[in-house]
Amino acid sequence: MAAVSIYEVGPRDGLQNEPESVSTDDKVELLRRLAAAGLARIEATSFVSASWIPQLADADDLVRRLPPGPVYSALVPNARGWERFRKADIPVAAFFVSASETHNHKNVNRSVDAHLEAFRPVAESVRNEGLRLRAYVSTVCGCPYEGDVPAARVVEVVRRVRELGADEISLGDTIGVGSPGRVRELVRAVAGEAPLDGIALHLHDTFGRALANVAAGYEEGVRTFDASLGGLGGCPYAPGASGNVATEDLVDLFAAEGIATGVDLDALVATSAWMEDAVLQRPLPGRVYRARRGAAARAEGALSD
Amino acid sequence: MAAVSIYEVGPRDGLQNEPESVSTDDKVELLRRLAAAGLARIEATSFVSASWIPQLADADDLVRRLPPGPVYSALVPNARGWERFRKADIPVAAFFVSASETHNHKNVNRSVDAHLEAFRPVAESVRNEGLRLRAYVSTVCGCPYEGDVPAARVVEVVRRVRELGADEISLGDTIGVGSPGRVRELVRAVAGEAPLDGIALHLHDTFGRALANVAAGYEEGVRTFDASLGGLGGCPYAPGASGNVATEDLVDLFAAEGIATGVDLDALVATSAWMEDAVLQRPLPGRVYRARRGAAARAEGALSD
Repeated sequence: MAAVSIYEVGPRDGLQNEPESVSTDDKVELLRRLAAAGLARIEATSFVSASWIPQLADADDLVRRLPPGPVYSALVPNARGWERFRKADIPVAAFFVSASETHNHKNVNRSVDAHLEAFRPVAESVRNEGLRLRAYVSTVCGCPYEGDVPAARVVEVVRRVRELGADEISLGDTIGVGSPGRVRELVRAVAGEAPLDGIALHLHDTFGRALANVAAGYEEGVRTFDASLGGLGGCPYAPGASGNVATEDLVDLFAAEGIATGVDLDALVATSAWMEDAVLQRPLPGRVYRARRGAAARAEGALSD
Repeated sequence: MAAVSIYEVGPRDGLQNEPESVSTDDKVELLRRLAAAGLARIEATSFVSASWIPQLADADDLVRRLPPGPVYSALVPNARGWERFRKADIPVAAFFVSASETHNHKNVNRSVDAHLEAFRPVAESVRNEGLRLRAYVSTVCGCPYEGDVPAARVVEVVRRVRELGADEISLGDTIGVGSPGRVRELVRAVAGEAPLDGIALHLHDTFGRALANVAAGYEEGVRTFDASLGGLGGCPYAPGASGNVATEDLVDLFAAEGIATGVDLDALVATSAWMEDAVLQRPLPGRVYRARRGAAARAEGALSD
């Protein structure tokens, strides 16, 4: 039994930020490998408009080919996405909202209120069909346009998405400005509104603080952490553009702390190596992954001397 | 008044691991910029044999040209190094010992006992001349040859170097395997042997956990942290070979936590950019540095569209 749950978002949140589209066959193989590595919850794709995110244009095909094992989710941004989602056999629908008004407006051209009201019929459909609903609340530690986002504002948005029926709420530090103290304050504030077993942390590693923030969140009682294989969607040459903390980095941190994740680190590293060499043909930024590959390369060099 | 002290080791620990030697003029300019950025304690160089570390072969020249302001230290590996050090005007001598026997033996071909006894006359000379002594105890969280290093063993080596007269002891996680829980355990154990105001943490970022470990060490009461400008000595393409946590990453972490370091982050980033562009002509791995440069490059790209 895993003591913490790693929620793999690479196939959706990672691949949507990769410069090149990955073939549906390779996505299926990625999911198969992630499932084999022990990841029990995976966000597979998004039913977003193909003109908005062409990297995920194959969502309808992909969801017919999901390897068995994990509990999958898919992003459902609006009513059109819901019409596509309901034809698939996926138990968890996910949606987004920002904690900051300006970020929400830049993303979906609507206020937080208008966005949540527009989503309400979809949320009701999800509940009526007995499916689960995951909410991503972004910019919880800071907004690229507004700067600091008060914890009280995040708590208010958490209250609103719970009222819409969200079973799990993933708090996103979208721009990586969080710090351990900020994360502690946030988790304590949110715990007054919602039980922590329904709260996840989705931390970006822009300034190298994701693992410090994960450790703080764990100590405050959070037990679900989002991560992206190898840091998919980021780039080692431009960490400023980096996204989610790498799954390997999280799994290795918890292993070092003696906390079970149920995930096989070697299998993850092998999967990142396959993605890098055979699929993306560009380096992935994950720290543990790069350290493992570097050590392997040095050992090989030593052997061939 | 800074709440934490950042001990800059880039000019010694960083540059000794760079593939190419840096000119003495550039080293003087680096020290001038570090001093101007507010770094109050800097390890300038090492009086090691030039055949062992050619990158620091200019130590005798460099120490005659130290920019005023900071309190400098230099590494004194042995009696020959001491003869060179005593001709310079530097208030702090530093020396190394490993917490693990195998690592110490691989480094200096002697047991920990024999190494410390061989250094005893130098330590006595340092004290007799009214100078201060900084001890680096390495492999405190794990050894590349022996694996886990028990906290009790680190405490024993701390006791030994204090008995030699060390005023400050820097505990080094040489291979970056530490985790927040391990660091907490270690600091608590060491606090039973030595006051924490004489303890520093020297954390490597191999697996991306340095900042998580810094945060844990700070919470346990450590107030001095070693760091290397821009992650000097490491490489963004092979973080497995990375060394010290980057000074910028530490300064930005503490800034986000509202903890004063007295160091100007913008000046550090500008210094790393100068090192990268004008001196080393290879990228530096520091996370905050790379994020800042990436953001600047993207802003420039946007402006030129």
